Amino acid sequence: MNLVYQGKTKDVYKLTDGNVLLKFKDDVTGEDGVFDPGANTVGLTIEGAGKSGLRMTKYFFEELEAKGVPTHYIDADLDEVSMTVKPATVFGKGLEVICRFRAVGSFLRRYGAYCEEGQPLDAFVEVTIKDDDRNDPPISQNALEELRILTKDEYEILEALTKKISRIVKEDLSAKGLDLYDIKLEFGRDALGNVMLIDEISGGNMRVYKDGQYIAPLDLEKLLFD
Amino acid sequence: MNLVYQGKTKDVYKLTDGNVLLKFKDDVTGEDGVFDPGANTVGLTIEGAGKSGLRMTKYFFEELEAKGVPTHYIDADLDEVSMTVKPATVFGKGLEVICRFRAVGSFLRRYGAYCEEGQPLDAFVEVTIKDDDRNDPPISQNALEELRILTKDEYEILEALTKKISRIVKEDLSAKGLDLYDIKLEFGRDALGNVMLIDEISGGNMRVYKDGQYIAPLDLEKLLFD
Repeated sequence: MNLVYQGKTKDVYKLTDGNVLLKFKDDVTGEDGVFDPGANTVGLTIEGAGKSGLRMTKYFFEELEAKGVPTHYIDADLDEVSMTVKPATVFGKGLEVICRFRAVGSFLRRYGAYCEEGQPLDAFVEVTIKDDDRNDPPISQNALEELRILTKDEYEILEALTKKISRIVKEDLSAKGLDLYDIKLEFGRDALGNVMLIDEISGGNMRVYKDGQYIAPLDLEKLLFD
Repeated sequence: MNLVYQGKTKDVYKLTDGNVLLKFKDDVTGEDGVFDPGANTVGLTIEGAGKSGLRMTKYFFEELEAKGVPTHYIDADLDEVSMTVKPATVFGKGLEVICRFRAVGSFLRRYGAYCEEGQPLDAFVEVTIKDDDRNDPPISQNALEELRILTKDEYEILEALTKKISRIVKEDLSAKGLDLYDIKLEFGRDALGNVMLIDEISGGNMRVYKDGQYIAPLDLEKLLFD
C-alpha cells in the first residue's frame, strides 16, 4: 500500500486491488489554535478527532448507500481509523458543494444586505473552488461550464444529489433534536465517469445547532451516538 | 425639477412630467487619485469626464434603441451634460451585470487556477450586488432567486439582453480596431415591470484594448469619435 497524498486531515494510500485507503488523522483545520472547519490551514491536533470524523462518516455513508445515493464508500475500520473507498477523479482541481438551510457564514457575509442572520433557506446549493491561494471562491454553474469544469448535465446531477444528501442528513439530525444550518460535500467521478459523493461527512463538514446553540464538531458525534 | 439623489458620478433629478434627468458630473471613481471605473469611491475630478461619458452613452443608447433593445433613454443634451430617461426601479438595491469576452479583472482573480490572463470567454455573464460595504459580491442565478431579487424568468431576460447589448457594443468597437474585454451594465424595471437597460454605457463601464494595449476611459471617446 503506497502513500499517494498527504492531506490536511487525511492521508491517502493506493491499495493493490485498485481501491483507496483513507487514513483519518487527528489534525484539524483551524487558525490560531481554534478548530475551524472552514479554515484552510491545519490549526491543531485533537486526540480522537480522526476517529470521531470516521465514525460519523461511516454512519452517514452507509445510510446514504442504503438510500441509493452513489458514494465512493466501501467499508470502514474504526480501530484502524481508516476507510476503504473506490478510486475517484475530482472535478477540475476539486470543488466543494455547500447546501444551506440557514443564512449564516460566507452566505451572510456576502448577501447580508438581503437576508437576516439565520433566515431559512430552501436547501440552497452553491459551489466553491478548492483554491487556498484564492480563498476558495464561489463559482456559478455558468462559470463551471465556461471553464469546462462541469457540464450543465453534471451540474444538475450534482445539485440534485446535494439536496437529496443534505436533506437525509438534516432529517437524521432533526430526529436527535439537532438543527442542520449548512453542510459541505465533495463529489467526484467514478471509473465510469458517473458522479458520486466522496470524502467524508463529519462534524467538520457542517454547522449544527441545538436549541439555538452552536454544537462544536466533536460534541456532535457524542450527541448523535451516545 | 427636484434633486432626488446625488450619485458618485451623476446627480438625479425628477422632472415634472414624471421622467428623470441625469446630470453627468466630472467626478470619476478611483483610488489614490487614479481613475478606476471599478472603484467604489470618487477618486478625482477630470474636466470633461461627464461630457465624455454622456457622448458615448448617447451614441450607444441610440444605437441600441434602433436595434430593438429596451432602454430608459429618451434624449440627451451634450451642452447641458444631461440625459432624460424614463423612471425605473432597480432589482433589489441595484445589480451590476458584467459580460466578459476575455478573462481579466475579478474573473481572473477568482478563477486564475482555471484560466490564463486574457483567455477568450464566450460572452460570459455574471451579476454582482451593488454593496460597497461588502465589495460588490458576485451572486448566482440561484441566489438571486432564493433572495427574491430576480425571478428565474427575469434572470433569463437579463442574461439574453446582456449578451445582445454587449455583442452590439463589441462589434461597434471592433469596426474601429478596438477589442472589448468586458463591459458592465445596469438594468431596471419600467413602469410596466419590463426589464430595460438603464444608467450609462461609457468608457468607465468597459475594458477596451487596442493592439494589446489597454485604452483609458477618456481616450476611448476620442478613438471612437474623432
